[in-house]
Amino acid sequence: MTPPIKDLKSRVRIAAVTRTMATKTTSLNFENINQKVVAAKYAVRGELAVKSEVYRQQLVHGTGDLPFDKVISANIGNPQQLDQKPITFFRQVTSLLENPQLLQHEEVLEKSLGYKSDAIDRAKFLLKSVQSVGAYSASAGVPAIRQSVARFLEERDGYPADPNHIYLSAGASSGVNTLLSIICADKNSGVLVPIPQYPLYTASLSVLDAHCVPYLLDEHKSWGTDLAVIKQSYEEAKSKGIDTRAIVVINPGNPTGASLTEADIRNVINFAADEGLVIIADEVYQTNVFVGKFHSFKQVLSQMMEEHPGRYEHVELASLHSISKGMVGECGHRGGYFELVGFDPSVEAEIYKFVSIMLCAPVIGQCLVELMVNPPKPGDPSFPQYKQEYDSIFKGLRERARALHSAFSQMEGVECGEPQGSMYLFPTITIPQKAIDAAAAEGRQPDEFYAMRLLDATGVCVVAGSGFGQKPGTWHFRTTFLAPGTEWVDRIVKFHQEFMDEFR
Amino acid sequence: MTPPIKDLKSRVRIAAVTRTMATKTTSLNFENINQKVVAAKYAVRGELAVKSEVYRQQLVHGTGDLPFDKVISANIGNPQQLDQKPITFFRQVTSLLENPQLLQHEEVLEKSLGYKSDAIDRAKFLLKSVQSVGAYSASAGVPAIRQSVARFLEERDGYPADPNHIYLSAGASSGVNTLLSIICADKNSGVLVPIPQYPLYTASLSVLDAHCVPYLLDEHKSWGTDLAVIKQSYEEAKSKGIDTRAIVVINPGNPTGASLTEADIRNVINFAADEGLVIIADEVYQTNVFVGKFHSFKQVLSQMMEEHPGRYEHVELASLHSISKGMVGECGHRGGYFELVGFDPSVEAEIYKFVSIMLCAPVIGQCLVELMVNPPKPGDPSFPQYKQEYDSIFKGLRERARALHSAFSQMEGVECGEPQGSMYLFPTITIPQKAIDAAAAEGRQPDEFYAMRLLDATGVCVVAGSGFGQKPGTWHFRTTFLAPGTEWVDRIVKFHQEFMDEFR
Repeated sequence: MTPPIKDLKSRVRIAAVTRTMATKTTSLNFENINQKVVAAKYAVRGELAVKSEVYRQQLVHGTGDLPFDKVISANIGNPQQLDQKPITFFRQVTSLLENPQLLQHEEVLEKSLGYKSDAIDRAKFLLKSVQSVGAYSASAGVPAIRQSVARFLEERDGYPADPNHIYLSAGASSGVNTLLSIICADKNSGVLVPIPQYPLYTASLSVLDAHCVPYLLDEHKSWGTDLAVIKQSYEEAKSKGIDTRAIVVINPGNPTGASLTEADIRNVINFAADEGLVIIADEVYQTNVFVGKFHSFKQVLSQMMEEHPGRYEHVELASLHSISKGMVGECGHRGGYFELVGFDPSVEAEIYKFVSIMLCAPVIGQCLVELMVNPPKPGDPSFPQYKQEYDSIFKGLRERARALHSAFSQMEGVECGEPQGSMYLFPTITIPQKAIDAAAAEGRQPDEFYAMRLLDATGVCVVAGSGFGQKPGTWHFRTTFLAPGTEWVDRIVKFHQEFMDEFR
Repeated sequence: MTPPIKDLKSRVRIAAVTRTMATKTTSLNFENINQKVVAAKYAVRGELAVKSEVYRQQLVHGTGDLPFDKVISANIGNPQQLDQKPITFFRQVTSLLENPQLLQHEEVLEKSLGYKSDAIDRAKFLLKSVQSVGAYSASAGVPAIRQSVARFLEERDGYPADPNHIYLSAGASSGVNTLLSIICADKNSGVLVPIPQYPLYTASLSVLDAHCVPYLLDEHKSWGTDLAVIKQSYEEAKSKGIDTRAIVVINPGNPTGASLTEADIRNVINFAADEGLVIIADEVYQTNVFVGKFHSFKQVLSQMMEEHPGRYEHVELASLHSISKGMVGECGHRGGYFELVGFDPSVEAEIYKFVSIMLCAPVIGQCLVELMVNPPKPGDPSFPQYKQEYDSIFKGLRERARALHSAFSQMEGVECGEPQGSMYLFPTITIPQKAIDAAAAEGRQPDEFYAMRLLDATGVCVVAGSGFGQKPGTWHFRTTFLAPGTEWVDRIVKFHQEFMDEFR
């Protein structure tokens, strides 16, 4: 029945011709598909990102006449696409999980290939727990890995954690999707979201047809949360009849890089406790902290419960973490978890059902969660190399952040707070009126216009502030500080001067 | 700030006490969360599956007094949890992708560890394409892998395939979720779904608040599609004002194991072309075919387009495949793809945006897609072993299917068609009235009652037919034929006899 493959070329031609002979149109079109998806915005991988990929292909194939020889993807926190190397210990273990037959050659592994005994032992432990990384795990994740996460949380916070309330997920994004899908009951439901924010939140709320109740972060206080502003947003939403059910906090911040103080966190918890709001604490950048100290919502809430027995026990907290960021940077493996505190068992049962429909998180990603929360300890054979690699990544990120910050501080009309954490800087830019007019003529926001010009001139891809939301009348862009070297930073500085000169 | 970890035990006690002091209740409860999620049913990992895990733990810890010494998870198509071994070539490549440092020791790999040169070459090719398996890929997947999928489809079908319309996904489930999320516009939208069906479809439609428009498969015609029945369902839905937009076909069938004839497929395509329905062809079991031949919807549609130029060009087809099933069986890695044919570009742009919100499919799973569609070929160093492993898995599945079928054919009141494909048998069972009454007293469907009794008595976990939908008044269960040996089959036979004796 199958025609020989040599007919394929003529079939390509025939298909192209017959396609034009269609007598009917497709049944799905832009107007009749799910308009909640159409309304969702996700600039991080939007027009700029797509154009940057076109440029990258043109450079590979030597087509196009571009004024740069390299595309720099500073639009997305993708450490291993740029300079960050995976942690050796982690990848040694995952290689053994992928090919357990290697464990029949321990001597070769240790003597010729640089594996230490603790990497081999860990692989054996994980293989015993998962059977095969090619098998589905339990819906909420491998039980032994959930236990490791609980132990990690207990050591991090000094308070008990229960593996039964820990859910392994395909990155934090999948966890956020699960939580919002359960929390948002109908189009009347609302969720408080910081502005600027990582657009996963607004996009997911749009798809769920629920309200984003935005609260502005305070750029002049290092992008901290301002309780008065949160209250005002909440009250405004209430007066419109919106049933606000949860508050999202991203700490350290994305795109802002801010690291919240304990006082800010206490304020949010008190507010959530008073108003009966679920707290969604997005803590995926918890190890990317350069200034001050990371305070987990779980720890602060636990402290408050200890200080005032009976007052916070009804608070529902979901906190998320991921293998994608930090010194781990394994975003391609799609691993993460969320911990639930204080949720009603019947609600947790529905969360379990929801995650089970998608079967389970990728098992090798789950194993990387285990490695992240339970890395080599002092005294372990792999510890010295692990420590050296981890520290070197941390220092590298801090140095790049500072170099980029220093470049921004010299640019005309650009203001940028000191880098505190995460992988991003989010400078304010002053855009001249002439540029604002030129942007309007193209139907773009001024900062989108700026970012597009930057990409066209330098090959550096950033995300315009309007992709995250910002205070009306202010303009920003988000750039990662993951790309190595300073040459690309120089390109930005030069572009900016020319842009200002052109439109001043 | 952090209290020392030695305080943890007392804190566990304190937490338990203060929890009882809560003055307010949680804000989320079973009544006020998203009722569309509450309404969703997903029996494959439901009560029976949860209970089977409890039994498994009791056996591990020696607690409980169970009449069996092993739990058999025949409820879920999870090949590597049971007897199926991963394909060596695939896992050699993925181990190198996880630890590229191994590529500095090619001689050791080849001389001491059994890697052939083609495994090493493939790993190098994939690493060049993905940079690192720890980095996010492009949203629709790694371009080189999408090209491999297109070549595979061209070779399989003899018709052109365009990599730009191929989307790599986290298993087929994630692809189905994407497609239904785009297609279903509002609560008026409907999708034709075969009954019995894999409950992902009804669960997803429930979450999307869209209508499942069920059409019964014909058990007496080997669970084939019956066009008259489909039309009747469609018309009935229309008369209720439902805007039916798509038809799902699972081929080979889940849970039925049926393999559709080309004539059945042509009928569905003609119907979809006439009524303007999107075809969702779930073809994840395409290599699990024991009887007859797998016909892809893409090939049959392409043939029909060739035969009648102008008549089928408006047809929209989405076909899905996965690394989870077949002789690959890598479900824990969450990999798959869907190909779109005939979709409007503006609709595809929304599909792209939707998948980009979740960033990308797990990259190591994407690489396994590449390995599945582009395995070793005759003449390649790894081919003999690949071929031997692949054929042996295929034969093993067929033998087990036949053995199980033969056991069912001897059981009182049980009818089961000859195994044709997929990983399941779906026998009809006759349940005595006394058992139906006993089930009703427990608030259960009769087949759920049967499956629960089976689990309690034998440790064999199956899924009741009501979890998939079935013709009213008929009862079934679905079992995989993945578990090795025949001892568990004997347990089923013995249980069945006792059940019938008890309730006759």
